[in-house]
Order: sequence, then C-alpha cells, then structure tokens
Amino acid sequence: MKKLISLAIILSMVGFAFADEGMWTMDQIDKLDLHKKGLKIPLEEVYNNDGTSLFNAIVNLGGGTSEFVSSNGLILTNHHVAYGAVQRASTQGTDYLTDGFLANSPEEEIQAPGTSAMVIDEIRDVTDEVLAAGAKIKDLVKRQKAIDKKIQTMTDAIEEGKEDVTAKIAEMYEGQQYLLYIYKRFDDVRIVYMPPLAIGNYGGDIDNWMWPRHTGDFAFARVYVSPDGVGRKYDPENVPYQPKKWLKISTRDLNEGDFTMIMGFPGRTSRYRTSHSAIYNRELYYPDWLKKAADVIEILEKAGEDSPEAAMAVAGMRKGIANYEKKYTGTVAAMDRDDFIQKTIEQEKKFMEFVKSDRKLKKKYANVLEDIGELYKGLGTTKKHDDVLNAFGYWAGTLPSVANQLVYTVNEREKSETERDPNFSEKDVQRNVARLHYRYMGFYEPAQKELLKYFIEKAVELPVNSRVKGIDKVLTKNNMSASEFVDHAFENTKLNDAEYVKTLFELSSNELKNLNDPFLELAIAMYPEDEIDRKASEKFNAEVTALRKKYMEALRLMSDKAVYPDANSSFRFTYGDVEGYKPRDAVKYAPFTTLAGAIEKDTGESPFNLPPKLRELYETRDYGNWIDTDLDDMPIAFLHTTDITNGNSGSPVLNAYGEMIGIAFDGNLEAMLSDWKFDPAIQRTISVDIRYVMFVTEKFAGADYLLEEMGLK
Amino acid sequence: MKKLISLAIILSMVGFAFADEGMWTMDQIDKLDLHKKGLKIPLEEVYNNDGTSLFNAIVNLGGGTSEFVSSNGLILTNHHVAYGAVQRASTQGTDYLTDGFLANSPEEEIQAPGTSAMVIDEIRDVTDEVLAAGAKIKDLVKRQKAIDKKIQTMTDAIEEGKEDVTAKIAEMYEGQQYLLYIYKRFDDVRIVYMPPLAIGNYGGDIDNWMWPRHTGDFAFARVYVSPDGVGRKYDPENVPYQPKKWLKISTRDLNEGDFTMIMGFPGRTSRYRTSHSAIYNRELYYPDWLKKAADVIEILEKAGEDSPEAAMAVAGMRKGIANYEKKYTGTVAAMDRDDFIQKTIEQEKKFMEFVKSDRKLKKKYANVLEDIGELYKGLGTTKKHDDVLNAFGYWAGTLPSVANQLVYTVNEREKSETERDPNFSEKDVQRNVARLHYRYMGFYEPAQKELLKYFIEKAVELPVNSRVKGIDKVLTKNNMSASEFVDHAFENTKLNDAEYVKTLFELSSNELKNLNDPFLELAIAMYPEDEIDRKASEKFNAEVTALRKKYMEALRLMSDKAVYPDANSSFRFTYGDVEGYKPRDAVKYAPFTTLAGAIEKDTGESPFNLPPKLRELYETRDYGNWIDTDLDDMPIAFLHTTDITNGNSGSPVLNAYGEMIGIAFDGNLEAMLSDWKFDPAIQRTISVDIRYVMFVTEKFAGADYLLEEMGLK
Repeated sequence: MKKLISLAIILSMVGFAFADEGMWTMDQIDKLDLHKKGLKIPLEEVYNNDGTSLFNAIVNLGGGTSEFVSSNGLILTNHHVAYGAVQRASTQGTDYLTDGFLANSPEEEIQAPGTSAMVIDEIRDVTDEVLAAGAKIKDLVKRQKAIDKKIQTMTDAIEEGKEDVTAKIAEMYEGQQYLLYIYKRFDDVRIVYMPPLAIGNYGGDIDNWMWPRHTGDFAFARVYVSPDGVGRKYDPENVPYQPKKWLKISTRDLNEGDFTMIMGFPGRTSRYRTSHSAIYNRELYYPDWLKKAADVIEILEKAGEDSPEAAMAVAGMRKGIANYEKKYTGTVAAMDRDDFIQKTIEQEKKFMEFVKSDRKLKKKYANVLEDIGELYKGLGTTKKHDDVLNAFGYWAGTLPSVANQLVYTVNEREKSETERDPNFSEKDVQRNVARLHYRYMGFYEPAQKELLKYFIEKAVELPVNSRVKGIDKVLTKNNMSASEFVDHAFENTKLNDAEYVKTLFELSSNELKNLNDPFLELAIAMYPEDEIDRKASEKFNAEVTALRKKYMEALRLMSDKAVYPDANSSFRFTYGDVEGYKPRDAVKYAPFTTLAGAIEKDTGESPFNLPPKLRELYETRDYGNWIDTDLDDMPIAFLHTTDITNGNSGSPVLNAYGEMIGIAFDGNLEAMLSDWKFDPAIQRTISVDIRYVMFVTEKFAGADYLLEEMGLK
Repeated sequence: MKKLISLAIILSMVGFAFADEGMWTMDQIDKLDLHKKGLKIPLEEVYNNDGTSLFNAIVNLGGGTSEFVSSNGLILTNHHVAYGAVQRASTQGTDYLTDGFLANSPEEEIQAPGTSAMVIDEIRDVTDEVLAAGAKIKDLVKRQKAIDKKIQTMTDAIEEGKEDVTAKIAEMYEGQQYLLYIYKRFDDVRIVYMPPLAIGNYGGDIDNWMWPRHTGDFAFARVYVSPDGVGRKYDPENVPYQPKKWLKISTRDLNEGDFTMIMGFPGRTSRYRTSHSAIYNRELYYPDWLKKAADVIEILEKAGEDSPEAAMAVAGMRKGIANYEKKYTGTVAAMDRDDFIQKTIEQEKKFMEFVKSDRKLKKKYANVLEDIGELYKGLGTTKKHDDVLNAFGYWAGTLPSVANQLVYTVNEREKSETERDPNFSEKDVQRNVARLHYRYMGFYEPAQKELLKYFIEKAVELPVNSRVKGIDKVLTKNNMSASEFVDHAFENTKLNDAEYVKTLFELSSNELKNLNDPFLELAIAMYPEDEIDRKASEKFNAEVTALRKKYMEALRLMSDKAVYPDANSSFRFTYGDVEGYKPRDAVKYAPFTTLAGAIEKDTGESPFNLPPKLRELYETRDYGNWIDTDLDDMPIAFLHTTDITNGNSGSPVLNAYGEMIGIAFDGNLEAMLSDWKFDPAIQRTISVDIRYVMFVTEKFAGADYLLEEMGLK
C-alpha cells in the first residue's frame, strides 16, 4: 500500500525524514547511519549492554541531565540544573548563587540537599507484559487503570528491598511500546564547583532562549555512596562513587560542520499531536497559563523587593515560571507565524488520503481523527473552574499544596483498591514525606499570602456555573472575604512547620479534619471537586491515549523510515552538526560566541556584570590551552542541530570520537515550536563550550585539581 | 618633518587613510583613485564645470537631497524628506501621509507648500576674498564679525535682482577655505507620488537607524518654473523644469562588493574636534538634550492621544525629536563603549609628539590644544540658564518662538551697523516672513500650552544664580504662577494669527511693546538675556574657530593624504562598496533585505502593517523586471560603506556606471559615533534599492507613466 502514496506526501506528512531530527531510544541508533553522518567510533562504544559504553556515563539529575567526568564520581551539569540544590545549600550569610562556590578539596564539598542522581543499569522492553494486563478489558478507563496498576506492581517488585534502586516504565508511541528503566540512585550529591551567577547565569532572563549567548552554564558536583557501594543518603562515611564509565574531555578543535551527539533525558514533546490538540493549546491552554504566570511573576517580584533575603527566597519559583513564560510566549507566536494549525490540518488531509487509499486501512483508521476531534469538543468546558482548583496544587503557595497532598493521601489510603487512584503509591508517599521540608525552602510568608489571596480572589470572581464550591463553602462558613480568610489562615495554621506536617501523613481523614487547621479545612472542602476533576482527566486520558495509539500506528505505517517516540523524560539519543542559522531576513548567526562578545555585552549591571577577574584574564589573554585558534579568542557557547528539549539540560555534547565538547543548556527562541515540530532550518541546541568550562575552572577558579582529576594536567 | 613621525602614528591619528572614509568636496575627487576603487566612467562624467555631469542632477531639497530622474523635472527623494511637505499639503479629510498619494497625470499633482528645491550652478573658491576682510583685525570677535559681514555682502550682491538665485559661502577646514555655491532655486515643487506610510515609513521609529530594514523610503516630486525658466512660486502657468542633467535608473544586477557613490548635502560632522569638545558633549550637551527631548516627546504623545487630528498635528515635531533622540542616545552609548574620549586623548598625545618633533611646529602649535582646553573650561557655567532661555526659540512652542523672532528683528533693525548682529539680514527677514504661516501648521493649542508650561516651570525651578530674569519679571509683574500665566497668555494673545504676525515685522520696538501681547511681553523681557547669551556665543565661537583652524592646519601637516573638511550642508561626494557588517559577536548582517523579510515583520499593526496589495504582489510574485535573481526575491534595502550623515537623506546612490541604484535614507545604530569618527568596520549607509522603488511605483501604485517618463517602458 505504500506505493499508493507518493514519497512527497510521506516526507511532508511528518518530519521523520529530515536530517538530525529525532530523540531516539538507544535500541534505534543502529538505524541512523551515524557513521555516514560523521561518527568515528564503533556504535558499541556509544551503547551496548555490558555496561562500559558512553551511555553509562550519563546521569539523571533531578529534572535534568549530567555526566560522569572522572573515575571518582565527579559530574558536570548545568548551573541552572544545580541552581535549586545550591540555593537550598546556601545558608544565612552565604550566597553561593551570587558568589559561586569552590571546594578546594573533597572535604570542603557541600551537600546538595534533596538532590538525587541516577544512572541506568538496565533497559528492558516490557511491552507484552504491560499490555497483557489490559488486554481483555473493553472499558478504556478500566483498561488504563489496569495498565497503570500493572506498571506500579512491576516497578514496586523491582525496587522491593533495594535501597538505591528506582524502576520506571515509560510508555512509548502512545502505548505501543513500554520500556523498563532500572536505575541505581544516589541520594548523596555534593557541590564541588559552581561559578558565580555573573558567569553561570550571565545574561539572565534577558538572554534566556537567545543567541548569541555568553552564559557559562555549568557546575561540578560529586556523587557519593556507602563504602560498600550503596547510593544511600549523606553520611560522613560515604565515599565517592566509582562509575563504570566516565567521559573524556575533548582537547581537539571544534569547527562548523563537526559531528555532535547528545544523550540525556528530554522531558516532553508533542510531535504527533493532531490539530485538535494544537488548537486547544493555542486557544486555551497557553493563553490562560501565560496570564496566570504573568500575574504570579508580578506578585513574586513585588514581594522580592522587600529585602535581598525575600528576593532570594522567591527567586527559584520566579525563575522557573519565567523560563516557561518565555517559552510559551514564543510557542504561541511561532504557531501563529508558521500557520502551524493550518499546516497540521493540511497534513491531516494527506493522512486521510493515505488511509482512504486502502480498504483495510480505511476500515481501521478512517474515523480516528474524527473521534479525537469529538473528545476535544468536551474539553475546556470546565476549564475556568479547574484552573482555579488546580492552582491549589502549586501556584497558590506551599501551604495549600501541602494541605492538598495531605488530604489526598489520607483519603486515598482509606479507599478500597478498586476505588483508589491507580497512581497512588505508598512508596511515593514515604519518599515525598522524607523530602517534604525542601518544599519549605524559599518559603517567604508575605509572598505566600499574596499568592493565596490572588487565587482565592480568582475563585471569588468566577461566574455562577464555574464556582469552586469548596472555596465558597469555606468563605461562607467563616463569613470572611478572600483577604480576611488569608490573614486568618496564616495566623492560625500549624502547617508552616514541616516536621509537624510530616507527622500528619499517618492520621485518618477524620483526625485530619479535627485538627481544624484553616488550610486543611480548605483542602478538605475542595477534595470532592479534586476527585471529580481527577476522574474526568482519567477518562479523557484513557480515551485520548487509545485513539492516539491508533493514530500513531497509522502514522508509522505511513512512514518508510524509523519513527522516534515523543519525549517522556526517558533516556534518548540525538545527533547533528555544529551549525549557525538565519533567524530572520538579512541576519546570519555564526555558531560560536566568544569572550570578546561577553565583554561587549558587559554593562557592569546584573545580569551583564562579568567578574573583574574574568575581564583581566581577557585583557591579558590568559587562556591556557583553551583558546580557539581560528576564532583567536576564548569560545563560550556554540550552536548545533541536535534535537533536544527541557530535561536535556546538562547533557554532554560529544564529538565524533565520543569526547565531551560541551554541555547542552538551551534551545533558541526562533524554534519555540520545537516541542510540536522540528524545523531543521532554525532549531538549534545551545551548548556551553567545554573549553570555556575548563578555562573558567582552571584560570578563573584556580581549581587545577579538578583538571588533574579529569586527566587534563 | 613628516619623516620624523612614523606612518603608524599618522594613520592612527585621524582616520584619513581608511578605505571609503570621507565626505569630499568636488575638487578633491581626482585624488581618490576612484577608478582603482571600481568607477567605470570618466571622472568628467561625475563632475565637470560645463554643467552636464552627474553632479548637475543632484538637487538640494529642504534639509535633504534629491535628484532629477527625468528630462521633465521629475525628482526622487526620501519619503521622510517629503514628509513635512506632504503633511502641509494634507487638508481636512485627506491624509496623504497615511494613504499615500498618486497624481495620475501632471494636472493632479499637488503643491508642496513651503518646499524649495535648488541646483548648484557654480562653485567658486573665494577664500582669499573672504579672509582679506578680517586679515588686519587682531580682535577675534571683531575679525569673525568682519568675515561674516563680508560673506553676507558677497552673497547679497550675487542674489541682487535675481528672483531664483541663492548664494551660500561655506567655511571649510575651520576657516582655512571658503567655497561659494551659487544655486538656482525652485519655489514650485509638486508631489507626484508618495507611497502610503505603511511602505514609506514601514517599521517607523522602531526600525529607525536599524538593520535589517524594510522601508520603502522614497517619494517622487516635480520641479516647476515659469515659461521663461525662472524658479518662481507656484503659478498655474508654470511648466516642468528641464534640467541640464538627470539620472538614468539602473536595470543592472547589484551584488555584494559592487562600487557605489553618493552625492548630496551632508549636514554636520565633528570629525576633527578635540577631547574637550567630546567631553563637553558627552557630559553636558547630550545628557541635557536627551532629558529635555524625552520630556517633550512625552508631552507631545500625551497631547496626540486627544484625537487623530491632534496626533497628526504633533507628529512632525515628535518625529523630528525622536529621530535625534535615538541618534544621540546611540552616540552617548557608543562614546562610552568605544572609550572614545580616552582614545581622543591618546591621539592628542600623538599630536603633541608630532608637534614637538620640530622646532617651528612647536612654536606655532604647541599650545593649541591647551588653549582650546582653557576655552572649554568657561563653557557650561551658564548652561542651566541658557538651556531654558534658548528653549523659547523652538522647544517651548510656536508662539514664544515667533515672538522671539519678532522682538529680535525689530530690535536688531534699530541698532547701528557696528552693534547689529552680523548675521542679521533684511533679506532673510523677508524670506522668513513670507514663510511664517508654515510654522503654524501642526499648531495644536493643548500641546503648545503644555510645552510652554513645561519650560516656564523649568525656569521657575532654576537655582538662584541661574534665574532667567525675564521670566521672573513677567511672572512677578503679572503676579501669576507658571500655569496661570500660560492660560493667560493663550487667552489674550493675537499671535496665533499668522497673517497678523506678518504685519508686525514692520513695527518699531516701541510699537511692538505697546501691543501688550503676553507672548511679546515675555520675549521683550527675555531679550536682554538673549543678547548677552548671543554675544557670549559669538565670543566663544570666534575664539574656538581661530584655535580649531590652527589645530586643523597642523592636522593637515601631519597627514600625507588628502583631508576632507567636516560636513556643513555643502555639496559632497562619498564612495564605497556594497557590504554587510558584524554588529556584534556571532552575528553577521547581509547587505540586502527582501520583501520576504518585510512580510516576516508584518504584524498587521502600525508601523508593521504592509498594505494587503503588497502582500498579494508578494504571494503572486508579480515583480515585473525588478526581481533579484540571486536573492530570488524583491530586494528592498541595501548596505554600503559610503560616508554620509543627516542631510544626505534622499541622495542618489550610483553604481560604477553612474546609474542610479538606490536612495540613501539612513545610517546604522552601531555607527552612532559616525559624526565624530568613521569606523570602516561598522559604519554603513542604508539605502532603499531602486528596484523596490520601481516595483512599488509600477506594480503597487500602477504609475506606469512615471516609468515611461524615466525611459523604463
């Protein structure tokens, strides 16, 4: 049947055939013709099953990626990946974020509280086992529940009795494949070197997502284990972990056109979504999110003006939201500019031509797009209500979200197994309780009060048919305005004591209620609506996943090349070459930036305030061996055509010889549609050049011992 | 003595030796090796004395430049040069600025009131005659007065009895050379074609001074004379002027590296100023000016919100100020970024080395820099006072400035010849009176009141030792606050009637006083301070000019190449090639923009709101013969390395064959130091491509008859 449709249609249908596109699973890399593309080492050195390939040097670190660069557990990642950990490690009187931090010896390293690192021990295809669990169930919601439960059981079994093992099963191709990842987990991670903010975050939010870029976005940490090799929590007896594999730092030249590859943990893409999803996101999801984000950023910034401590406290939340604000703003603009929705609709017409070209295909797939469309019709009708409701899980501040979690936990626990949320896991509860106090870091009461007030007022303003009944009930019962209730709640709550809150997770729902804590009162009142919302989501997800799986099946039939699954935080491989781009008419971006360019941007005011010592090194050209002789300058960042997204942050960039040439840290503003569509003309990875990393470490920080440890001295 | 200093010093001293630098007088072009640079036609075809060279096609138009492009008096210039004329020609219900205007035949052309065009008939070196007038006078102020008077007498004599002759003598090299320019003047200029604002000013203030640029900054006009060839005022009997020479429109390709040349009337540069002048401007002049400009723009914009008519009325003044605001902001930033003052001081050290290297030089020039420094020490002490005082000549609005002019005229007229301002000329008075009503166009009373209030309040806020006594006196006498006086003045003045004001120029100072007009009261009260200020300026100027002349003399001795004089609105020649530039690290600008780029910028909202018809032409690629086959698109603007400044606006850009390839309309933001210093790496001329001009005229406007007239159909 493939012969029935022209190659042109196949190529234009989905972007598979374009150079460099794709976040591939490791079992697919032999289909990528990598040696033709420039790879100079055997594929087995990139990935194999015996545990000594480059693959084994890649480390999952919180929401991002990192990599071993010495035999002694030293890891490199992004400054912005280590940001939260270092913020938590800063104490009264120390500000490691602004000043940077260097441990002059392993003894001086500081704990990164709440940070876990993980390496993959094994990848296993468990598709059959997982799907079998739902095979005989017709009802989509029940089937999905059975699958979710099966996954939970399987991973629980693997983790059972093992202190440092985490198991995850990732759904690929909308449920056509399930891959099991077994990780070794390290709960003792320590900060080794973090450059000052004026290097590690040079350009700040202004330059975020932008090229030309001059950010030294890197940090060193070290992974510790017990003397017998268990990745346990911090213990003074712990010793540096000896990884199976660590990366060699490249000392070669790097030039335009050179082959590059990246391995890491990309978060989420939506490359195979239909126009219905694109329209929903463009018209509803992004605009609502952006409005909310802008308001919350304003609240946080205003609160941050109170004092330097306040500014530091709100910085993490503000930075996180601002990052997505810039991204989503760009996504919306790019959707409009590129006529993305119209183009998706055109592609769906071609899909229908393909499907209708064959009787069997027609029977199976002719309705799939229409059915997805029907599902989306119902979506969004309760969005005003749900947005306010869901804000109490994060946006409205720490205490409402902790209260929500408490109420959810004790109520789910009391349910029968069939009634219980299939994603509920006693182990997760314990893990979250253990980490609960980290959620109180960055807790600044005036900001928290304003956030809560904002969202309760949002609830008050809702139209009659969208009321959040739980909030109405609490305000009526207390006979208070939004503002009065917020003052009352913060005055009378005990939830601002994290250790106290931890003890509450063992209570019954009744005991919790009898505490009469205002935040618990609010969470309990909202819980019935949370449940309704959760069940509606469950239903929609089960149905849409089944349809997307079908659609994906047909798409894979349409393509005569390998297709990669959407990113889902599981391990992926991508390749491409060093290359600039044309952002707009008459403008060409070169693929390298230099220290001269950083100096050019330096205004002396944050975020463009280079440390004087870096300026001195520039003026005396004290670059060590790290100068680029073609540029006749110190390179800082470079562009390449690899296909990454959030979660890849901190990923190693490797050259054709598998040596580390950079650390990926960003995408470019022009390619903001990248989560939806790969555009080879403009999508670029922005990486910090490993030569700049080494130069700053050696010449600026004077940490020669780290270079020795990496075999560079 | 030249051998005593190294070539390196000479080269670094002043930029003469750099490629393409220089705004040359026509008698210098044989020293420029133009054929080596790419010129393909004999020099005599560029300029000669018999009046049939390209030179003769260049037309002075108001503050800018234009050029004949047909044998029938058709001229091309910039949209922004014709802006004021078209604004004045727009009447109730017509908005030629927004909508554009096309005369479908000569009968439909509209007058451009108050606009004069001029072509040069003759250039004569009158240095000896001018200098002789001051030769025996020791006192610098008296000497300068004698020279100014001589110039006035000479030009008056030439103009005597000739209705359409204007004579100007331009001081070159700070008074080392005087060139006489005899112009034929045309007071009947009519608008032929003006594209809509969305083409002619596409990008507006946002894109002003910027690359990449997509502005179709052009307009056609026609010059009329009496049937017997006199450039008289509008008369229905007038006929199109038949110029001696007109430019051929190029139909060749245009490529990077191609030779280009420009002739026109650059306004003012300060390429040979000392560090004292740079410091004064950087520290005092620019910052004060920018503060004032920002406030005035705010006042005008606020007033413009009243109604579309109000917006149109204030647009001209606002646009003019905003243009210089962007320029001066850029100049200040560039001075700092490039360490301009420090570098100038370094160059002055080299100058001193040169001067001290020879006994005679030393004797003559060793003190010149120090003496200039001494002069500058006194400058600025009365600046707070003078700034407020001088604002009443323009910034404070039409009525104060008209009143000022009236008071000045009648008082100067009553003085003895020795006492009188040497620049006072009865002929100028008559000319200004004849044009006085144009100053009332764009008069919007609410805006005018706010401007006056702003500057009187500025006066009120001045410290004790800087008071403007005239203002104090008037406020005290009337016993009014600033705001009360402004209301009172606008309520009781008769000066808002231009025709009435014209009659007042014949009154005596006493008669003027007895009118008891509040604006005249104010102007009369301020006149004594105006006089003091004028005399202080006269003194400073006479002294500094004498010293600068000396300094310039020595600079010319230092150089072994031709030196060009600073721009002073007299006719100049510059050449260079088509070339992009690197505005900053990792960014390269290509020298051509395209219609695709204009579409890319189009948001549908002003100033990025392309007319739908242009979009249609783009979509159907209906480009006629004007497409660039290399770009495979319609070119819009291009960059070249010619050396221009304000006043060159509207100048023809010619190729190696002397054919017209573009119209110069802007410089680039990165080269904002250009009035002080030419930087070959970043200074570029931005010109609209003649192919875009012709495409818009033919395909968008449908004005085929104009292409026929230019010999293109």
